[in-house]
Amino acid sequence: MKVGDSSVRRRIVAFSNPTIRLLRGLRDKRQRQREGRFLVEGLRLIEDARAGGRLPEMLVVAQNRAHPPLLAEIEAAVAAAGGEVIETSAEILAKIAGKDNPQAVCGVYAQWETGLAALDPGSARLWLVAQAMRDPGNLGTILRTGDAVGAGGLILIDDCADPFSAEAVRASMGAIFSQRVARARWPDFLGWLRGQDSQGRQPRKSGQLVAASLRDAVPYRGAPYASPCFILVGNESRGLPVAYEAACDLRVTMPMRGRADSLNAAIAAAVLAYEVVASFDG
Amino acid sequence: MKVGDSSVRRRIVAFSNPTIRLLRGLRDKRQRQREGRFLVEGLRLIEDARAGGRLPEMLVVAQNRAHPPLLAEIEAAVAAAGGEVIETSAEILAKIAGKDNPQAVCGVYAQWETGLAALDPGSARLWLVAQAMRDPGNLGTILRTGDAVGAGGLILIDDCADPFSAEAVRASMGAIFSQRVARARWPDFLGWLRGQDSQGRQPRKSGQLVAASLRDAVPYRGAPYASPCFILVGNESRGLPVAYEAACDLRVTMPMRGRADSLNAAIAAAVLAYEVVASFDG
Repeated sequence: MKVGDSSVRRRIVAFSNPTIRLLRGLRDKRQRQREGRFLVEGLRLIEDARAGGRLPEMLVVAQNRAHPPLLAEIEAAVAAAGGEVIETSAEILAKIAGKDNPQAVCGVYAQWETGLAALDPGSARLWLVAQAMRDPGNLGTILRTGDAVGAGGLILIDDCADPFSAEAVRASMGAIFSQRVARARWPDFLGWLRGQDSQGRQPRKSGQLVAASLRDAVPYRGAPYASPCFILVGNESRGLPVAYEAACDLRVTMPMRGRADSLNAAIAAAVLAYEVVASFDG
Repeated sequence: MKVGDSSVRRRIVAFSNPTIRLLRGLRDKRQRQREGRFLVEGLRLIEDARAGGRLPEMLVVAQNRAHPPLLAEIEAAVAAAGGEVIETSAEILAKIAGKDNPQAVCGVYAQWETGLAALDPGSARLWLVAQAMRDPGNLGTILRTGDAVGAGGLILIDDCADPFSAEAVRASMGAIFSQRVARARWPDFLGWLRGQDSQGRQPRKSGQLVAASLRDAVPYRGAPYASPCFILVGNESRGLPVAYEAACDLRVTMPMRGRADSLNAAIAAAVLAYEVVASFDG
């Protein structure tokens, strides 16, 4: 295959260009949602995405830079798939990325379906569920942990940070492309978890919902985890609402030997997830 | 005790005031080190510090704000200890904190001794060690985890982020005040760990050094951990240098079931730390 051909590139160096304006807008959550697109910075993540079967609709590369051969290969793949390759200045790339030293390449991807209906709870032994989590870095870290433990995906309840934000994508280290992500309201999530259809009948097995909690909890080590297990972690400062904890099948507690009474949410999710996986593997 | 007395406050509203300039400078790592001071934002962290026996040398409070009774109590304690209480404008507080919506109060603390010599490895069953960790948020999260698992403290090897930076202090959720922190070069750390004195004699027991690794490693679950156990985690993108891994007493591996080959450094440290604690508790 012939690579290194930069003829597929369209050159844009005007800040006022509508495409550039659109790209800059993708740093804003509302605009990302309106456009149904998101931005991924850096060749490594773009290559991860390609390995997972996803190509950007648009690739933006810095002009006058020595690029690795891999980039030319990805450019060719994007063009062959009907996508667009844009070459622009370092200044404009910095504006798009919103930082002084941007990566030399970024990609624009279509967001995907994030409804629960498409997910089968029984397709994985373990799922992660975040409620009102506000830190996109935490969300991304949880996605990365989910990938490592072989989770089915991440389900976002209530008003969470945007998993398609640059910070979440970066912290996920590519797991945004391998983990499934769904957004749901709490009652809809519970119905789905319990295997109920829209008439309230239960055609399939219920998942087990587990919360890290201080109320009515058993030690997390050796607790009776059951597949498919859903680990629920709450908001960074408020934790889970009492009613949500009460709806869980299992409340587990982790030793706290210091002055603090809680762990970072992504840390708690990871320690629990590794415990659940170990208990399943016997 | 009479509280709510604001007469201890000195009012400064000029950006050019030398004290204000010094405070603003504390956002810069080099200036923090030169001054031997650091900044803590928010009443909650300041109260955590007081609970741990530390009062700020200087307290900076926003003028024209309704403050909780606790603040007046802390103001009185700071003044009684010979510290200074400064009242200033919201604009200046925003400049000091480096953000638009700063907390209504911040404190300036003296940094403390961070040499290894003052630490006794045998004083705790578990210690955390970070090598070339560049993300202050990760450092703070590891401090917070250390507090939760009852670790002796955090030892920083090579060129790490500053544990006294605002981001690390915030992520630590107060654990910067309860965990001991030391900085050391690798050979000095090894000597201390091995219990050697300056003549190379070994007057005390050696600590066990454990790394998460893919090379020559045993499963992390059920590995032969021994107290005092030192969990070593490496740089966020490069991991540990091969020679450092080789110097470890135990290399453990954690299941990686996804496409990625590593966890976030703070996550790996926490999963290992909880495993070590569980193995000690039997």
